[in-house]
Amino acid sequence: MLKLPHKVCLSMKVDSFSDHDSLFAGLAKRVGARLLLASTSEVYGDPEVHPQSEDYWGHVNPIGPRACYDEGKRVAETMCYAYMKQEGVEVRVARIFNTFGPRMHMNDGRVVSNFILQALQGEPLTVYGSGSQTRAFQYVSDLVNGLVALMNSNVSSPVNLGNPEEHTILEFAQLIKNLVGSGSEIQFLSEAQDDPQKRKPDIKKAKLMLGWEPVVPLEEGLNKAIHYFRKELEYQA
Amino acid sequence: MLKLPHKVCLSMKVDSFSDHDSLFAGLAKRVGARLLLASTSEVYGDPEVHPQSEDYWGHVNPIGPRACYDEGKRVAETMCYAYMKQEGVEVRVARIFNTFGPRMHMNDGRVVSNFILQALQGEPLTVYGSGSQTRAFQYVSDLVNGLVALMNSNVSSPVNLGNPEEHTILEFAQLIKNLVGSGSEIQFLSEAQDDPQKRKPDIKKAKLMLGWEPVVPLEEGLNKAIHYFRKELEYQA
Ligand SMILES: NC(=O)c1ccc[n+]([C@@H]2O[C@H](COP(=O)([O-])OP(=O)(O)OC[C@H]3O[C@@H](n4cnc5c(N)ncnc54)[C@H](O)[C@@H]3O)[C@@H](O)[C@H]2O)c1
Ligand SMILES: NC(=O)c1ccc[n+]([C@@H]2O[C@H](COP(=O)([O-])OP(=O)(O)OC[C@H]3O[C@@H](n4cnc5c(N)ncnc54)[C@H](O)[C@@H]3O)[C@@H](O)[C@H]2O)c1
Ligand SMILES: O=c1ccn([C@@H]2O[C@H](COP(=O)(O)OP(=O)(O)O)[C@@H](O)[C@H]2O)c(=O)[nH]1
Ligand SMILES: O=c1ccn([C@@H]2O[C@H](COP(=O)(O)OP(=O)(O)O)[C@@H](O)[C@H]2O)c(=O)[nH]1
Ligand SMILES: O=c1ccn([C@@H]2O[C@H](COP(=O)(O)OP(=O)(O)O)[C@@H](O)[C@H]2O)c(=O)[nH]1
Ligand SMILES: O=c1ccn([C@@H]2O[C@H](COP(=O)(O)OP(=O)(O)O)[C@@H](O)[C@H]2O)c(=O)[nH]1
Repeated sequence: MLKLPHKVCLSMKVDSFSDHDSLFAGLAKRVGARLLLASTSEVYGDPEVHPQSEDYWGHVNPIGPRACYDEGKRVAETMCYAYMKQEGVEVRVARIFNTFGPRMHMNDGRVVSNFILQALQGEPLTVYGSGSQTRAFQYVSDLVNGLVALMNSNVSSPVNLGNPEEHTILEFAQLIKNLVGSGSEIQFLSEAQDDPQKRKPDIKKAKLMLGWEPVVPLEEGLNKAIHYFRKELEYQA
Repeated sequence: MLKLPHKVCLSMKVDSFSDHDSLFAGLAKRVGARLLLASTSEVYGDPEVHPQSEDYWGHVNPIGPRACYDEGKRVAETMCYAYMKQEGVEVRVARIFNTFGPRMHMNDGRVVSNFILQALQGEPLTVYGSGSQTRAFQYVSDLVNGLVALMNSNVSSPVNLGNPEEHTILEFAQLIKNLVGSGSEIQFLSEAQDDPQKRKPDIKKAKLMLGWEPVVPLEEGLNKAIHYFRKELEYQA
């Protein structure tokens, strides 16, 4: 999902399971298919519990700048379980934590793509706030394996899919700069409003019930993403 | 809104600002009208902060039995502010706390109507759980005055409208039994899942910005509701 708050907000109608999403649920019911909701760690908001497990109710500002995405996903989960209980639709809900890899959008404003592009182009790496906020990044192939395991399981309640290796954003900036071998500066910009300060998945449930855990080391994943972005820039030039 | 979880859930599409609610927003924009959202104290969920003021982000289970109503209202607020910011629609958001009065539905399962009907009919007053959970009830005419004041104000952010006089549910049962002069027993049933344990509005904002506060004493309001329900039962007999 592109991170363009001012443009995507009214597309929340899509995230929040309106028109053609209810249509998908109707279709799923008719053909007896399982519905997968690509939910998100953002349902936990700016969490007051760390790490975040599936039974945490979250800490979301319903009218803040991130609300369209966060509340849209929360209500999409609510609707999934309404369809499950009332219409018998089979649902699987993955709460996906930050994910990256080749073929992600170059300009969607997410931190990994921003930092890699900035490092490759010799531009300053833009850290919002002090950079002490944390995230835990998973490589896309781990996520895909988790989604497949979830769809093949009997687990209809929400499951976190993410890599629990947590770093500060400043550490990410330094790591990416080093992996690229870039001479870019690190530039501190103003903090983003309602930016979650800590985020890390508790993945006990996925380990226990899906036999899943991430296996791709962070540096290996980042090198693949850097390789992809380098080629893309060459191709564009 | 009728409190019939198993039936109303999929009508959340209405609460959550889908099809014809977006249409209302479109209409409001076209004719330059102000949109009033009848939001609810349920956006605060089972609150961990007491009393609840408008800047509290709430504590809501996104996949619990009350989620359809709570998350539906949260996302309706989100959508209101999206329409405000992106489309320039003027919005007013009232977070309405428990309200009662004549002409409320007899059989919607809310506590005031249940207790009054039970007391009038000599049936046991059904208290869910220990009855130590609290609510604060406002009389309908106070709410209406608050809504009018809100619509005539410049306050586009959410405003609590409720009566801060807080009582336990057991106290309500005893009070209603006494006002009716009923010989009904008080019967303790099992606790409702995710039932908010404490709820009381912080109405500083409404006092300051709307010059509003509730004026109808609880007993006076209850007597009017009891009078109405008594007549309704006579009419039905
Ligand atoms: N990337 C992450 O870190 C992350 C984290 C949590 C959740 N998610 C969720 O995972 C999902 C995918 O995220 P992503 O980062 O891969 O997004 P993306 O924007 O990279 O990919 C979305 C894809 O969906 C397609 N698409 C958009 N609207 C569509 C429609 N109406 N019908 C069919 N296809 C449509 C787009 O063309 C695009 O290929 C989203 O629901 C997102 O909210 C992603
Ligand atoms: N009563 C409370 O304590 C309370 C508390 C918080 C919020 N609210 C909110 O206030 C609003 C009114 O609540 P209420 O208790 O008076 O409900 P209610 O069920 O008594 O009244 C709702 C009214 O809306 C009408 N209605 C329903 N769907 C409609 C539609 N599509 N178009 C036009 N009219 C329609 C119904 O016929 C009914 O007259 C609701 O949005 C509710 O969520 C009520
Ligand atoms: O299964 C689908 C459903 C929709 N769309 C696309 O999603 C966009 C929005 O679709 P629609 O107009 O149905 O949604 P709405 O505008 O009502 O949110 C359009 O570009 C559609 O072509 C799609 O690619 N696949
Ligand atoms: O150029 C950027 C983009 C993002 N971030 C920060 O990186 C973290 C992750 O942001 P992203 O948008 O990638 O994902 P999300 O906030 O949804 O986890 C947040 O703390 C952002 O403030 C940053 O410092 N610089
Ligand atoms: O301004 C309105 C809009 C709708 N409705 C009624 O609300 C119900 C649902 O309307 P609609 O079919 O448009 O909504 P949906 O089923 O798509 O949620 C119908 O009984 C409509 O007659 C109404 O009374 N007033
Ligand atoms: O017959 C009843 C109906 C409700 N309640 C309790 O009364 C409180 C208010 O319930 P209501 O459904 O009226 O409103 P809400 O929970 O939405 O505030 C809750 O703690 C309910 O568990 C009760 O004890 N007996």
